[in-house]
Amino acid sequence: MAERVFNFAAGPAAMPLPVLEQAQKELVNKGGSGMSVMEMSHRSPEYETIIQSAESGLRALLAVPENYKVLFLQGGATLQFSTVPLNLMRNSFSADYLDTGSFANKALAEAKKFGAVRTVASGKAENYSVLPKLNPADLDEKADYLYMVTNNTIYGTKWDMQNLPIPPAGVPLVADASSNILSEEIDITKFGLIYFGAQKNVGPSGLTVVVVRDDLIGHAKADIPIYLDYKTQADNDSMYNTPPTFAIYMADLVFQWLKEQGGVAGIQQVNEEKAKRLYECIDNSSMYTGTVKHAADRSIMNITFVCPTEELNAAFVKEATAKGLTNLKGHRSAGGIRASIYNAVGLDAVDALIGFMKQFELDHK
Amino acid sequence: MAERVFNFAAGPAAMPLPVLEQAQKELVNKGGSGMSVMEMSHRSPEYETIIQSAESGLRALLAVPENYKVLFLQGGATLQFSTVPLNLMRNSFSADYLDTGSFANKALAEAKKFGAVRTVASGKAENYSVLPKLNPADLDEKADYLYMVTNNTIYGTKWDMQNLPIPPAGVPLVADASSNILSEEIDITKFGLIYFGAQKNVGPSGLTVVVVRDDLIGHAKADIPIYLDYKTQADNDSMYNTPPTFAIYMADLVFQWLKEQGGVAGIQQVNEEKAKRLYECIDNSSMYTGTVKHAADRSIMNITFVCPTEELNAAFVKEATAKGLTNLKGHRSAGGIRASIYNAVGLDAVDALIGFMKQFELDHK
Repeated sequence: MAERVFNFAAGPAAMPLPVLEQAQKELVNKGGSGMSVMEMSHRSPEYETIIQSAESGLRALLAVPENYKVLFLQGGATLQFSTVPLNLMRNSFSADYLDTGSFANKALAEAKKFGAVRTVASGKAENYSVLPKLNPADLDEKADYLYMVTNNTIYGTKWDMQNLPIPPAGVPLVADASSNILSEEIDITKFGLIYFGAQKNVGPSGLTVVVVRDDLIGHAKADIPIYLDYKTQADNDSMYNTPPTFAIYMADLVFQWLKEQGGVAGIQQVNEEKAKRLYECIDNSSMYTGTVKHAADRSIMNITFVCPTEELNAAFVKEATAKGLTNLKGHRSAGGIRASIYNAVGLDAVDALIGFMKQFELDHK
Repeated sequence: MAERVFNFAAGPAAMPLPVLEQAQKELVNKGGSGMSVMEMSHRSPEYETIIQSAESGLRALLAVPENYKVLFLQGGATLQFSTVPLNLMRNSFSADYLDTGSFANKALAEAKKFGAVRTVASGKAENYSVLPKLNPADLDEKADYLYMVTNNTIYGTKWDMQNLPIPPAGVPLVADASSNILSEEIDITKFGLIYFGAQKNVGPSGLTVVVVRDDLIGHAKADIPIYLDYKTQADNDSMYNTPPTFAIYMADLVFQWLKEQGGVAGIQQVNEEKAKRLYECIDNSSMYTGTVKHAADRSIMNITFVCPTEELNAAFVKEATAKGLTNLKGHRSAGGIRASIYNAVGLDAVDALIGFMKQFELDHK
């Protein structure tokens, strides 16, 4: 069997090898159950142990307070683009959105179906190579929520998680944190709702986690699809209907692995070191140019850069792939090169990439 | 490691052992890719091969005509309860529903949010122990669709798939076939739309398959959640957003396994033999009573029966579990005993159950 590659995919993405090996070991027979996790009734005691472990593991990693519910859902961020306004537009039926890239834009377009939406700051004019400046005076005190994307997978920008946009008093901050959740410390209490697709730092695709404050649940109109009402899911501990049982089990294994890495604080140190080395390589070269304008806006999960020509970008991706460094092509809407270095991508992978980048620069002088 | 049990769960349910073993073998490194299927970008050539194989495998097994789309979605039957009316209520904004059990009822309750819904026949008065008689004259010629559940997981009833309800000309038949798809031959052209959650005869939970005729796509209102518009998914080959990649891969393996069993016609013979043996055991005993009134209404997937007392029902489940015959407890809303014998539950499992049933009857005379 071929060696495992270094996988820089943006999502679905690399998973920790010990997690995959554990899943492999028990795939046909989980513990003493006599069956695969995939074959377990979601209402069996064996499976309840798994989903409860996943929830408590996540709560511990993120320090989720008691007054927040953790929901394990399906449909990806895309379904949340609609679910958030359908649940949180409840008083003024309006919301403020920060436009920082494609996914923020898609969320905004969905929200417009259900209420009045304002773009309060946008990086669009600079092709999202910067995070927009936000003037607090521009925010609506009557908005039902302020919406942001914490890390922009396509454009490689990230908000300072210790210096988040501050909505007016009483307006909850809502965030799509799909591509940087669990990568660095955050304060959950800054958010009314934070959600993330699993397929970057949590597990396989097909699972979406929503962490939502109690008081924001239960305000949806009676005529929305029952699956989309957070109250349905909260009242039934994510078991109103059959949840994606195997994906939740994989997430549980990832949470256990992350705890062994020293939790979020521990992995953050590694992540910052990975990003530092990669950005230094970019900044010290005459071949590569980072696409994010200001160093303060740079993501530590998605590192985006370009070579001087399209031909060199293509050669870079092709030669890297041949050396077992895969999925480095930038998103089709942004072009260039993107190295996604989520939690499961180790320093060894980053060092291998840097070694390749230096050699590529020499080869193509 | 403990032996594998005989698993009679209603869903998530037993999966074919060769499928699990194949998945186990390649869990850490799929073929020459150097990564797990879970780690593959959904837009990579490696993964596209998998999803295309799953679609063509299913099309071959069900003889799906060219003018039907196959969609791989998330959210389970519960999300389809809303998605169907949101897409198919397009002219009269009304629909006829056949009420044959809990899931038909839940679907009906959702549809009422979006249009006028009539219950055209119901088995409720007899606690769903019979399939209701349907008078064609009762059907609305202007209805946007006629909705049915082909097999009722909880109550153990099943429509004759060769003698389905016939809607008025021009009214499409819509079916939830979650618990008997791929278990016996059906004519897809009888349906405008047929859908099924994966977790019984297809694969792990977290995947829902919709097979829908072309002309029924594209009529949804512009203000429904974009994820719920079949057109979004059809136009993007189920890749508008990240699909549940691993669950689709497992479904692909199940479809390949089913082909090796002689396809649907082949497995149908086995399924009919399994059900025949089990019903004979019930009918020839003085301990067990089948809960479905008429033999013609009996499911070949979910076999429901009771012992003379609640105490004996409980003892049956407990003693069976101790012998490695698991998940035989009836649904909490129906009580009694239920043996779900989906495609992956072999004749050996059924024979083991029958052996136990005979011994239990002797022991508790």
